[in-house]
Amino acid sequence: MTDLFQLSAVAAAQKIRAGELSAYALTRACLDRIEALDGDIHAWAFLDAERALAQAHEADRQQAAGALGGPLHGVPVGIKDVIDTADQPTQFGSPIFAGRQPEEDAACVAALRGAGALILGKTVTTELASLTPGTTRNPLDHGRTPGGSSSGSAAGVACGMMPLALGTQTAGSVIRPASFCGLFGFKPTLGFISRSGVLLQSHTLDTVGIFARSLQDLALTADCLGAQDRSDEISYARAPSRLLAFLNEETASGDSFAFWRTPAWAHAEAGTHAAFDELVRELGAACETIELPKDCDNLIPYQHLVQSAENAAWYGAIHDRHGDRLSPAMHDRLDAGKQVTARAYLEAETARDVLYATMAPALHRYAAIICPAAPGPAPLGLQATGNPIFNAMWTYLGVPAVTLPLLEVDGMPVGVQLVGPRRGEARLLRAARQLMERLGAKV
Amino acid sequence: MTDLFQLSAVAAAQKIRAGELSAYALTRACLDRIEALDGDIHAWAFLDAERALAQAHEADRQQAAGALGGPLHGVPVGIKDVIDTADQPTQFGSPIFAGRQPEEDAACVAALRGAGALILGKTVTTELASLTPGTTRNPLDHGRTPGGSSSGSAAGVACGMMPLALGTQTAGSVIRPASFCGLFGFKPTLGFISRSGVLLQSHTLDTVGIFARSLQDLALTADCLGAQDRSDEISYARAPSRLLAFLNEETASGDSFAFWRTPAWAHAEAGTHAAFDELVRELGAACETIELPKDCDNLIPYQHLVQSAENAAWYGAIHDRHGDRLSPAMHDRLDAGKQVTARAYLEAETARDVLYATMAPALHRYAAIICPAAPGPAPLGLQATGNPIFNAMWTYLGVPAVTLPLLEVDGMPVGVQLVGPRRGEARLLRAARQLMERLGAKV
Repeated sequence: MTDLFQLSAVAAAQKIRAGELSAYALTRACLDRIEALDGDIHAWAFLDAERALAQAHEADRQQAAGALGGPLHGVPVGIKDVIDTADQPTQFGSPIFAGRQPEEDAACVAALRGAGALILGKTVTTELASLTPGTTRNPLDHGRTPGGSSSGSAAGVACGMMPLALGTQTAGSVIRPASFCGLFGFKPTLGFISRSGVLLQSHTLDTVGIFARSLQDLALTADCLGAQDRSDEISYARAPSRLLAFLNEETASGDSFAFWRTPAWAHAEAGTHAAFDELVRELGAACETIELPKDCDNLIPYQHLVQSAENAAWYGAIHDRHGDRLSPAMHDRLDAGKQVTARAYLEAETARDVLYATMAPALHRYAAIICPAAPGPAPLGLQATGNPIFNAMWTYLGVPAVTLPLLEVDGMPVGVQLVGPRRGEARLLRAARQLMERLGAKV
Repeated sequence: MTDLFQLSAVAAAQKIRAGELSAYALTRACLDRIEALDGDIHAWAFLDAERALAQAHEADRQQAAGALGGPLHGVPVGIKDVIDTADQPTQFGSPIFAGRQPEEDAACVAALRGAGALILGKTVTTELASLTPGTTRNPLDHGRTPGGSSSGSAAGVACGMMPLALGTQTAGSVIRPASFCGLFGFKPTLGFISRSGVLLQSHTLDTVGIFARSLQDLALTADCLGAQDRSDEISYARAPSRLLAFLNEETASGDSFAFWRTPAWAHAEAGTHAAFDELVRELGAACETIELPKDCDNLIPYQHLVQSAENAAWYGAIHDRHGDRLSPAMHDRLDAGKQVTARAYLEAETARDVLYATMAPALHRYAAIICPAAPGPAPLGLQATGNPIFNAMWTYLGVPAVTLPLLEVDGMPVGVQLVGPRRGEARLLRAARQLMERLGAKV
């Protein structure tokens, strides 16, 4: 029998809906797990167990009273501490914002509550969702980083503290920690999830993403988050998404995949090279190894330049006023960002759609482009959160990416990253399912 | 009796449609005027009289064959030499682009041809639509600049070489030369006219505009130019504009105007101060003098910063490769632009919509905001094209502006500039008519 804390969000929501499980019991199980493990893991920046239980109790009361629950009714979710919550502080992983209490929920938090989810607490982020780690440990090996910047969200879901968590990705802060912690991670198209009420680091890159322990959970959560929000100008109009329904439809598995080493390949470890070579062999005719034009080598430096410039623009005032309370690494990053010229920035901005057009045929022709989610398994030590080099290019292009915990290197997980065209989340998640079925993995 | 070269576009098109005037005779009259005056005025960068007459002949032949002519059928138009024409060179006022022959018409040129207009020739622009003047003289006083950068378009329409011309405005290159040459000038909302095929100087500022000798001519021409073009990302979707029909409707003239001195007021000449004080007195209760928040003082420096940065981005490659063939003034401008940081640029970009929101109540409450179109009459000398300081703020905000030749200072015209909210061209042109009626001016 599965322990409660191991339930997927889809399974938990179904049991709650069927009256087989109470939100209270599920929340209690999550809190027990946190109590048992968080002294070592440090996934939480804020947690109020009494309030969480009271919310769960209220959810059960509503259901008993016959209220129509949302698709996540009674399911506890962890929220990265850069995403505003009206009932809990949001402190950005920085002493400058210690005790900061937002007046309103971020749009994505409001959407989750609207779907019935319970906001369990706030998860540890690196300083201002950037380089300098918090104290969170990787549950699979306490001597390794869980990745970042969404460190607590990844670590917490990985060890059963909650079935779901939200994070944000500006370079590789969702896909990389998901890979390091052996999770399913999803960074949708830029504009799929509203960023209103989310710490602004880089307006053309910042993307809200999801951590879960199954593909279905990613789809269900994205369905609850994906509506247009006019207060975020990159949020786009579309019909309500039906990712979970689309994912669950029976389909012939005829599409083929493209394996692209990407310009980051030389940065991957030997074990990662070997694992992916083996994966491609196993997929056989269903996977073609592709090359893309040399111009694509610019994807990584362009992302870095855009992040650096926009980061300096949005954090510039913090740097000016509270520089003494920033970490040295953040100081250096902002000093460098302040030097980026508008000309260089506009070149990188202009190149974005040109490079997307270069890659669009491949992104459309195949079910998905496959590449590593990270250079290797989670690095040893807690002083750094690992290299986002396999993620930065996709964040820059604004395309959806999902990582699947399908490979192992040195006894630790390495994610298989699948990437699709902009706004192609439905096809991408289905491609992920087909890949798992081909490999005989449990979907 | 009116000489043919004095006809407005509306009147000429009407006569041609009625069979009272041939396109050939009108074109012949324009060419005669050019022959008589252009030795002094230098309005033209390229003109092929034979081809123009052949086009006019073909227009007459089509009409005789019963073809349904467009609203500008047979009307000659001058095109600023930064706007591509497939049948005539487009040389940007720079020796670097001498002999450059585009393969396609700019979208706005194609739209004019589609409406039946005849592309008479290419009008002189300053170097790359920037600071350094060509040799064009002001027809009202040959010792004065016609303004710039759309110098030849303004000078040519002012002395009857053609009834209509297109120009472009990045700071004040349509409204200012129209004011200096005693014309009606119109810079619509950013995105009203497509810029595909127009020299790219500053993608958030560059706006195609119109020169004419009547308000109706501006409205008719804008109606022929204003359709969405997906190849220019700032071009927006809307129903076909009916500016001329709206302008001609009988209406009660009950709206009131706002006079705003603007942050540029201290740069206006004493004669301009006096002329506008007198105008406001004459309007009496129909015009309220307003103040706007202090933040609006930033409009001018922000426009300058954005233009400088974007100019350096788009002209940077020209500067790198052909620097020796740029004027010293252009050299200095690009050197300065290359120094602008991305942080400063993003601050100015972000402030744009914030400042627009600050001003929007005033822009919506009044029929229009009134201010000078230029600091004074056209300056003496041909070494510079005058100061765009009364135009830059409106270009930065992307709002529509029209100038009316209603005032005189030192025996030379000074335009009254009317400004409205974004996408408010219909109401703005009607407000312009109401203002003229109030002042007893010929509409």
